[in-house]
Amino acid sequence: MPDSMTVSVLNGVHDVETVRRPVPVPGPGEVLVRVLAVGTCGSDVHYYEHGRIGDFVVKRPLVLGHEPSGVVVARGEGATLHEPGQRVSLEPGVPCSRCAQCRLGRYNLCPHMRFFGTPPIDGAFCEYVVLREEYAHPVPDSLSDEAAALLEPLSVGVWACRKGRVAPGSRVLVTGAGPIGLVATQTARAFGASEVVVTDVNANRLRVAEELGATGTVDVSATRLADSGYEPDVLLECSGVPAAIGEAIRQLGRAGRAVLVGMGGDEIPLPLAHVQGFEIELTGTFRYANTWPAAIELAARGDVQLDRLVTHRFPLRDAEQALTVAARDDTVIKPVVVPGA
Amino acid sequence: MPDSMTVSVLNGVHDVETVRRPVPVPGPGEVLVRVLAVGTCGSDVHYYEHGRIGDFVVKRPLVLGHEPSGVVVARGEGATLHEPGQRVSLEPGVPCSRCAQCRLGRYNLCPHMRFFGTPPIDGAFCEYVVLREEYAHPVPDSLSDEAAALLEPLSVGVWACRKGRVAPGSRVLVTGAGPIGLVATQTARAFGASEVVVTDVNANRLRVAEELGATGTVDVSATRLADSGYEPDVLLECSGVPAAIGEAIRQLGRAGRAVLVGMGGDEIPLPLAHVQGFEIELTGTFRYANTWPAAIELAARGDVQLDRLVTHRFPLRDAEQALTVAARDDTVIKPVVVPGA
Amino acid sequence: MPDSMTVSVLNGVHDVETVRRPVPVPGPGEVLVRVLAVGTCGSDVHYYEHGRIGDFVVKRPLVLGHEPSGVVVARGEGATLHEPGQRVSLEPGVPCSRCAQCRLGRYNLCPHMRFFGTPPIDGAFCEYVVLREEYAHPVPDSLSDEAAALLEPLSVGVWACRKGRVAPGSRVLVTGAGPIGLVATQTARAFGASEVVVTDVNANRLRVAEELGATGTVDVSATRLADSGYEPDVLLECSGVPAAIGEAIRQLGRAGRAVLVGMGGDEIPLPLAHVQGFEIELTGTFRYANTWPAAIELAARGDVQLDRLVTHRFPLRDAEQALTVAARDDTVIKPVVVPGA
Amino acid sequence: MPDSMTVSVLNGVHDVETVRRPVPVPGPGEVLVRVLAVGTCGSDVHYYEHGRIGDFVVKRPLVLGHEPSGVVVARGEGATLHEPGQRVSLEPGVPCSRCAQCRLGRYNLCPHMRFFGTPPIDGAFCEYVVLREEYAHPVPDSLSDEAAALLEPLSVGVWACRKGRVAPGSRVLVTGAGPIGLVATQTARAFGASEVVVTDVNANRLRVAEELGATGTVDVSATRLADSGYEPDVLLECSGVPAAIGEAIRQLGRAGRAVLVGMGGDEIPLPLAHVQGFEIELTGTFRYANTWPAAIELAARGDVQLDRLVTHRFPLRDAEQALTVAARDDTVIKPVVVPGA
Repeated sequence: MPDSMTVSVLNGVHDVETVRRPVPVPGPGEVLVRVLAVGTCGSDVHYYEHGRIGDFVVKRPLVLGHEPSGVVVARGEGATLHEPGQRVSLEPGVPCSRCAQCRLGRYNLCPHMRFFGTPPIDGAFCEYVVLREEYAHPVPDSLSDEAAALLEPLSVGVWACRKGRVAPGSRVLVTGAGPIGLVATQTARAFGASEVVVTDVNANRLRVAEELGATGTVDVSATRLADSGYEPDVLLECSGVPAAIGEAIRQLGRAGRAVLVGMGGDEIPLPLAHVQGFEIELTGTFRYANTWPAAIELAARGDVQLDRLVTHRFPLRDAEQALTVAARDDTVIKPVVVPGA
Repeated sequence: MPDSMTVSVLNGVHDVETVRRPVPVPGPGEVLVRVLAVGTCGSDVHYYEHGRIGDFVVKRPLVLGHEPSGVVVARGEGATLHEPGQRVSLEPGVPCSRCAQCRLGRYNLCPHMRFFGTPPIDGAFCEYVVLREEYAHPVPDSLSDEAAALLEPLSVGVWACRKGRVAPGSRVLVTGAGPIGLVATQTARAFGASEVVVTDVNANRLRVAEELGATGTVDVSATRLADSGYEPDVLLECSGVPAAIGEAIRQLGRAGRAVLVGMGGDEIPLPLAHVQGFEIELTGTFRYANTWPAAIELAARGDVQLDRLVTHRFPLRDAEQALTVAARDDTVIKPVVVPGA
Repeated sequence: MPDSMTVSVLNGVHDVETVRRPVPVPGPGEVLVRVLAVGTCGSDVHYYEHGRIGDFVVKRPLVLGHEPSGVVVARGEGATLHEPGQRVSLEPGVPCSRCAQCRLGRYNLCPHMRFFGTPPIDGAFCEYVVLREEYAHPVPDSLSDEAAALLEPLSVGVWACRKGRVAPGSRVLVTGAGPIGLVATQTARAFGASEVVVTDVNANRLRVAEELGATGTVDVSATRLADSGYEPDVLLECSGVPAAIGEAIRQLGRAGRAVLVGMGGDEIPLPLAHVQGFEIELTGTFRYANTWPAAIELAARGDVQLDRLVTHRFPLRDAEQALTVAARDDTVIKPVVVPGA
Repeated sequence: MPDSMTVSVLNGVHDVETVRRPVPVPGPGEVLVRVLAVGTCGSDVHYYEHGRIGDFVVKRPLVLGHEPSGVVVARGEGATLHEPGQRVSLEPGVPCSRCAQCRLGRYNLCPHMRFFGTPPIDGAFCEYVVLREEYAHPVPDSLSDEAAALLEPLSVGVWACRKGRVAPGSRVLVTGAGPIGLVATQTARAFGASEVVVTDVNANRLRVAEELGATGTVDVSATRLADSGYEPDVLLECSGVPAAIGEAIRQLGRAGRAVLVGMGGDEIPLPLAHVQGFEIELTGTFRYANTWPAAIELAARGDVQLDRLVTHRFPLRDAEQALTVAARDDTVIKPVVVPGA
């Protein structure tokens, strides 16, 4: 085991640096994991562009990256779940496990959550990370390193479908065909949805949506959603575009469910009369809880294709490019950082 | 049985007239009910003031009133549930019972619903009405005629508490201490809620709320709700004031539920970041379904006091006063029309 | 339209006769349907063998068959949902639509249900039937007549999966690989189940189960289920064998759900200590409610294969053979009666 | 703080001894609690009589008692929730907080649970205990020490009512009027149940049930339950008498729920045809999870009366009498051990 490792740190807005840091030492119940692949998420890009997300502010150099896969290389005291050599997907947030939310099973709402790449907690744009062992989930050989990394966004999709109670017979609307929308499209089908209509303004992404199981698409740069005549039971809102959210909610049929996944700022307009008249149920999602087992199965059985989302790969020293490529190239879906490349 | 009866009709905005009409004849499966008491609802007042609610427009003379109690006086062909003389509370909306919503048990969302006092369906400001027999619910002797009428607003409260999953341990916030808020306060306690804090700008109504079981009140004309420090699990929004709704939602704790009962127009601002970060569940209510049996029990056992809400009584010929008294007198809670008075 | 039609009637135990009867006339809200295919169910066989099921006794000649598809040929007064010529799958039970169970959306528990082929209500082993129009469900061209008939057993599987809350990540155990078990196996997969292990004593049926998506099988004539080491989340019990039921429940993991679909007599042993220690949830199913829309989608999209279940076909005059073939031939899965053959 | 304390230990069947042991030292995150009162439970008596419950065998001296209240007297490293002097009710089982069940919020099903008075974990028949701080729940002054102890059985009742989805309108049947049945009766009412009928063979206990809110009672030594004509929605089975359980389930109406709380051995007869025909939902309870906050509120507001259940008090040196008094005296409901007496 080396003493030091390469780490990509965000010093501030538009300021990424590759540095050497000591390899961390696993504490009790923790494992040391060599990172194999890390997906890049819109929130990573947001920290790069703005130095903050809401109340979370980058005050000291921060390691981004919260979609990692890796291999267990050492274990702390009392850690017994995984043998060294075990390939794992990392659930990047470790809750306190003690508070009321944790005991209720809603650990994603734990106010003491330590989440990768969220100030002041470092993430996985580096060679080695430590994590409590039960948040490192073994993956089968059938999953690539990159697919194992992308179990994190898949978890977002699984959580959204659970919140929306997607099931056979459901008519689903997915607004936004970015990485989360494309994952949600696939999870909705895997949950048995009968119809999954996807909207975006990017024709390429809509083509990928169709390829991945969308039963219909609406290019909302050309067609108003309201003109589509589609009356979904479930809205999985993945665009975060405030104007689009209200419009999408208005499409929902009686007793429809709206799951707001995309981050769209502090406040949006809510079509109250429609929510009341049709008794729409609406909720937002905040990360996920207890999703990895299902996500692993969906990916391992091929019910969801994650490798198809990976459009660009960068070594650790080029992590900044992973954060900027999407702004330059509209064919980008999911850039991945590969530390060992 | 007389051939004709006295009816109070709304011809248009601010135009109420007392007329004679034939007593209706019960069809197959229907009962003829002599009306004993009818509560006046804010929506009755709204039709009187504006001639419409949304898409429902008063085009022909309309009989208002959808909170009636009465006594069965005759039965149509095949109606066998009630003996003549049975005192009943009337559930004022009869769904088609055939469509998908009805078969799913969500009959309040039936698009073919025929609802008392909603154009073009006449209501109960009259001496006799007919109704399908299963929507006439027998009431025990312990309930007054007026309490039997007010099972309708009580149903609104029961429905709201069900939607909000109020239970022992719940901390509830009721915004607005009008008739619905005062009913919701009581139903929340009857569902076992540990705390029920009520807001209003009317000190008299807040006093009544305390008398009826509120564990705390906030006069929002003097104190900002946000300064109260109260973090409810469940919001029962009964004010319909758009600015208040967003503020109330922001008070909700993690995994809180917001039930929007008060009608507040077409669109309101939704605090998206709070809804997402705390995974708030929000829904609106549209009338109720399957609430009468529970409402009868709550009222009959004294868990909810309905008679306390009745502040004014008018005979049928003065029905217009029941629609206008609230605007003149801020001690009004629930005016009741008593046809036999 | 002819005046009379061919009907296969059960006069009593082992006594089937082909007779002529008048073609029925559709009443208000009803459609007249020419029958295209009718599946044969174990309950049909049970009436043939025993003349009764529990309290339902064949006292007069009874027409069996409750899994029909057909084509609308005439409409009663006020029936407007379907054009003549529309091919439909028939939901064979029509509830009263008025009672408390119906209004709650649990119409399968309606005490006034009129169900095809259940004394004294006649079924579909005949050329024409009438039915309330909303229980005749249009089917797309992609479904064969026989698949449209088998939406009835598919509904049983959909209902079982809903009761068991099958979803991605679920490990399911299906006990019994008869027609219902084979449908349940497929619906469990279509609901996203990760693993579906099927048991039976018939090696042929287990092969079909594997072909239709089972991820594992246990021949319980050779291997004890307890020795399989399989710990399911959900049991879909489709065998009705009392000894097997208790054994299967004991396999369930913590918070597991047991859905008892197979009819196994009045009383069975329940492993109480396991049900308590693991907080197992158990329920039985009685027919289904609101399942056709989902079932149609599952079959139309090919998520469930129904044609594969049809092993034998008989014309109406040979309906008795459809009731007896299974006893002679262990390759039988689902015999179908085809009136037009 | 003294160095040693008095402890009542069970050496084996019918062998209780009072000994001195060192006062335990609170570890990280733990509090040291001086015990104020400890309820005696049927399982304590069972260990005394039989030396085991199922697979849990008393192999070494065991301290019984899992219904304690106390006062915080010292805190381990990092324990910050409670100030010394805080009076608390102790939730007597501490789960691992790491396993899948814990992360799902079902910590009562944690396979690594350490539960007071369950071999090999010592309980609270002693002067001091240590416990993780978040399982020591502060209680308001309005609760007596004994009521604070009895929040444990109250939690059993809260859990049962949650599992049975008791709510306004519910008709509940409580079988068995021992301490758990009497608590369940009260919690059912506090959850809003409209009717709570209680059965027992002990007339004294039935009188107490009526006093505590039962709306009806059936002395099943004199009257068959089936003859009562009562058709409940929810069964809270607290007797553990196998023959009674099946009979009680058969009383349930359509879509009824049976919650099996009383321990009745390994296997009981299940009325399968009734469970299927009426789609009864059945489950067993194993302890409870996340119940203390609600239980505290119910007791503090007087919605449930716990002090009424305490019929006998014993000092620690007479703990054996607390285990034997019920066998000699049928007026016993809940004997309590009071270490400071």
